[in-house]
Amino acid sequence: MSALSDLYQEYIECLNNQRWHELENYVDRNVAYNGQIVGLAAYREARENEFREIPDLQFSVSILVCDEKMVASRLDFDISPIGKFLGMPVNGRRISFSEHAFYEFDKRKIVTVWSVIDKAAIQAELPKRHSL
Amino acid sequence: MSALSDLYQEYIECLNNQRWHELENYVDRNVAYNGQIVGLAAYREARENEFREIPDLQFSVSILVCDEKMVASRLDFDISPIGKFLGMPVNGRRISFSEHAFYEFDKRKIVTVWSVIDKAAIQAELPKRHSL
Repeated sequence: MSALSDLYQEYIECLNNQRWHELENYVDRNVAYNGQIVGLAAYREARENEFREIPDLQFSVSILVCDEKMVASRLDFDISPIGKFLGMPVNGRRISFSEHAFYEFDKRKIVTVWSVIDKAAIQAELPKRHSL
Repeated sequence: MSALSDLYQEYIECLNNQRWHELENYVDRNVAYNGQIVGLAAYREARENEFREIPDLQFSVSILVCDEKMVASRLDFDISPIGKFLGMPVNGRRISFSEHAFYEFDKRKIVTVWSVIDKAAIQAELPKRHSL
C-alpha cells in the first residue's frame, strides 16, 4: 500500500481534474470540515461550487508532511475568482495566497479536515476601500 | 536523539515560559519567516513583542504532524490582545482562533517557518463596524 502522501496527491489530482465521481475513493462519507460533520455529498458540492466560482482553480501542493494517519499540506493558489471570495470583492482579479490544511485519514479516507486560508494575504492584494 | 516532535514541544515550552535566552537552541540564526530571512534576533524580538501586546499569550499545540525534517502544527489560541491584533481592533477582548504552521529543521534548529493565522475566525468574533 502506498504512503498517505501518494494517496493525498491522488486526491489533489482528482480535485484538479474535477473527477467528482471518484471523490468517494478519498473522502469518507462522514467527513468533517473545520469542526463540523458535513458529509461527502456536501463536501463534493462545496468543491464543485468553488470550481464554478473560480474557473481557473487549481490546487498546488508546495509542502507536504505526513505520518501514519495524518497529512499536513501547504497549498498555493494563483486564481481569479469571478465575484466575491471569502466575502471579499475579488471580481476577477488574479490573487495569490496559500492554504494550510490538516487531513486525518481513517481506512485510507479523509475523515477530518482542518483548513486555514491566508485571508490577510488576499486582503493585502486588493485595493483599499475609499474612505467616505 | 529525540524525534522532531519532542524538540518542537520543547521549543513551544520555551516560548510559553519566555525563556528567551534558550531560543537559540531551537531557532537558527538565519531563520526565515513566511519567505523572508529575518534572523534569530528579529525573530526573538517579534515573539517578545507578542507577549507584551498579549499578556495572556500561550501556544497550545492541538495537532502535530512530523517527518524527518519538518513539523506541521495546529496551534490554538484563546487570548486577549491589549490593542490591535493583525490590524484588527481587539482592545482586550478575548478571542479564539488557530494558526497552522510548517517548520523546516536543519541540524535540529528551525530554519524556515510558514505560518497562516485564521484571521477570518477573529473577524467573525469582533463586533461588526457600524455603517456611517
